[in-house]
Amino acid sequence: MIQTPTKTELLDARKQLEKYIHQTPVFQSTTINKMAGAQLFFKAENLQKMGAFKMRGAMHATLQLTKEQQQKGIATHSSGNFAQAMALSAKLLGIPAWAVMPSNAPQVKKVAVASYGATIIECRPTLEARESTLKKVVEENQCTPLHPYNAIDVILGNSTATQELLEQVNFLDIIITPVGGGGLISGTALSTHYFSPKTKVIGAEPKLADDAFRSLQTGILQPPLKPTTIADGLRTSLGEITFHFIKKYVEEIQLAEENEIIEAMHLIWERMKIIVEPSSAITLAIVLKNKSYFKNKRIGLILSGGNVDLSKLPF
Amino acid sequence: MIQTPTKTELLDARKQLEKYIHQTPVFQSTTINKMAGAQLFFKAENLQKMGAFKMRGAMHATLQLTKEQQQKGIATHSSGNFAQAMALSAKLLGIPAWAVMPSNAPQVKKVAVASYGATIIECRPTLEARESTLKKVVEENQCTPLHPYNAIDVILGNSTATQELLEQVNFLDIIITPVGGGGLISGTALSTHYFSPKTKVIGAEPKLADDAFRSLQTGILQPPLKPTTIADGLRTSLGEITFHFIKKYVEEIQLAEENEIIEAMHLIWERMKIIVEPSSAITLAIVLKNKSYFKNKRIGLILSGGNVDLSKLPF
Repeated sequence: MIQTPTKTELLDARKQLEKYIHQTPVFQSTTINKMAGAQLFFKAENLQKMGAFKMRGAMHATLQLTKEQQQKGIATHSSGNFAQAMALSAKLLGIPAWAVMPSNAPQVKKVAVASYGATIIECRPTLEARESTLKKVVEENQCTPLHPYNAIDVILGNSTATQELLEQVNFLDIIITPVGGGGLISGTALSTHYFSPKTKVIGAEPKLADDAFRSLQTGILQPPLKPTTIADGLRTSLGEITFHFIKKYVEEIQLAEENEIIEAMHLIWERMKIIVEPSSAITLAIVLKNKSYFKNKRIGLILSGGNVDLSKLPF
Repeated sequence: MIQTPTKTELLDARKQLEKYIHQTPVFQSTTINKMAGAQLFFKAENLQKMGAFKMRGAMHATLQLTKEQQQKGIATHSSGNFAQAMALSAKLLGIPAWAVMPSNAPQVKKVAVASYGATIIECRPTLEARESTLKKVVEENQCTPLHPYNAIDVILGNSTATQELLEQVNFLDIIITPVGGGGLISGTALSTHYFSPKTKVIGAEPKLADDAFRSLQTGILQPPLKPTTIADGLRTSLGEITFHFIKKYVEEIQLAEENEIIEAMHLIWERMKIIVEPSSAITLAIVLKNKSYFKNKRIGLILSGGNVDLSKLPF
C-alpha cells in the first residue's frame, strides 16, 4: 500500500530544502512561443546545483535520515546525475558518500562525483553487478542506500521544483515533465494535485524508451527494452511507487522521436542560450510535434538538467 | 569636444528601455569561484533579447529619434549582433529597417535579421563597400543610420546593463567588460562613475585584437590589424567617442590568448549551463589567468552575448 504524501509533507520538503538548493528561474522565448502557438514557461532545473533537479530529491532524502544514519553516510548506484546529487548532498552536510558506478560510465561524470568528495566504487556495467556491489558497500560501511527515484522522500524533494513553478507562473493549463524512472513526474503530479488541481500533467518519453507509455496503456508495469535513446537520463524504467503516482495523477504520456528531441535541444540552445540535455529538450519536442493539442495553452516545461558531454554533441 | 552624459541621462535611459528589454539575471558558480579564488558575479546579457547587450544600445538610440525620423526607419551596416539588435528594435516600434551585410556574413545571422523583418542589402565584404552601400540606402530611404558603438545614445543604452548589475550585487570591487568597439565598456564605465565610483572597470581584449590595449598604452587611437580572434564580436576597433571614455574611466585593459578564451567558454558552458560566445568568455579568461590580481575580490563580469554558430564550436 503506497501512501500519498500530504500537502503538509510537500510544503515541509520545500522548507527543508530552501537553504540547500537554488530556486531556479523560469524563462520564456518569444520566438519559440510563436513557433508553438502557445505560451511556454521553461523551469530551468538545468541551472540547479550540480546541473539537475536530482539535487532536490537526493538532498531531501538525506535530510530525512537520523543524525546517526547521516554520520554513517549514504550510497547509491548510478551512472548519471543521481550519483552527483548524492555526492553533493553529502558534501553539504559533511557526511561520507559512496557511489557505485559502472566501469563504462562517462569519465566526466566520475570526475564530477569525485570532485564532490564521494568515494567511487567501480563495478561491471550490469544491473546485477551494480546492485550486488551497492549491497556490499552498504554492509561494509553501515551506510544508507538511496534509490534515485523509486522512493517517497526523493519524490517529495522533486516536488519542490513544481511547487516553485506554480508560484512563479499562474494559471498553467498543462505541465510537461520528462519521464525516465518517474521520480520527477511523480513529484510534479503531487504538486499540481495539491496546489493547482486544474493543471494537467503530461509525461514526455522517448519512443525508444517507452516503458512508461506502455505501462500506462496496459495498466501493468512494463519492463524496459534495452533503451538506446539519446536522452540518456530517460533510459531508466519506472518503479512501483512512481508507476502508482503516474497512474493516479498523470493525464497521459506522449512520445518523441530521436530527431525531434535533438531539434528541440538545438532550438533551446540557439534561441534561449541555455544548455539543456536531451532529456530536458523532449518536453519542447512534444509541444512542437502536437501543436494543435497544445494550441493557445499556458504550458510549464520542466527542463530537468543540463549535464551534457560537450565533446559529443548531436549537432 | 565629447560631452560626458549626466547621471540623469543614464537614469533616463534605464527608464526608457524598461519595457523593451529584459532585466537579465546574475549567476554565480561555486566551482568557478573556488577555481578563481574570488567571488564572481556573471551578468547574463546572453539572455538579453536577440541574445546580446546590443539590444540596449540599438533600442535606446532608436527611441531618441523624432517620430518622423522613426517612421522613415533606421539602417546600419554590420555582420553581427548589431544588425539583429537594430532589426528587433525596429520591429518592436513598428518601423522599417535596413541592414547592410557583407556577402560573407554567416547565413545564420542573415536569417536572424530577416526574421525580425528588416530588409537585408548585401555588399562586398570590405569596409568601403559597407559604408558606401549604407550611405546609398540612407539617401534612398531618407532613414537614419545607427552606429553600432561610437555614439552617445548607444553607449547610454549599454550603460543600463551595469546599472542593473550594481543594483543586483553590492560592493563590487571590479567589473570586467569585453572590449571590441568599446561601446559596452564605455557604458559600464559611465555607470560605475556615477553609481559605484569605487568599482574599478577593467577591459578584456583578445591578444589577437589588441587595438584598445595599444591605444590606451600609447594614448593614441591605434588602427586594427586585421584581427582574426575567435572572439568575433571583439574584432572591431575603438571609435573616438569610446576611446575618450576608456581613457577617462577605465583602469586598464588586460589581454587573453585564444586558448584561454576557449577554455573559459568551455568552463562556463559546462559548469553554468549557459551559452556564451567567446567574446563573453574572455572576461572569465582574464580572471583565471591573473588570479593573484583578482584574489578575494568581488568581481562583476559582463557576459555580453550568446550568439554562436552551434555547428562550429571550438570544442
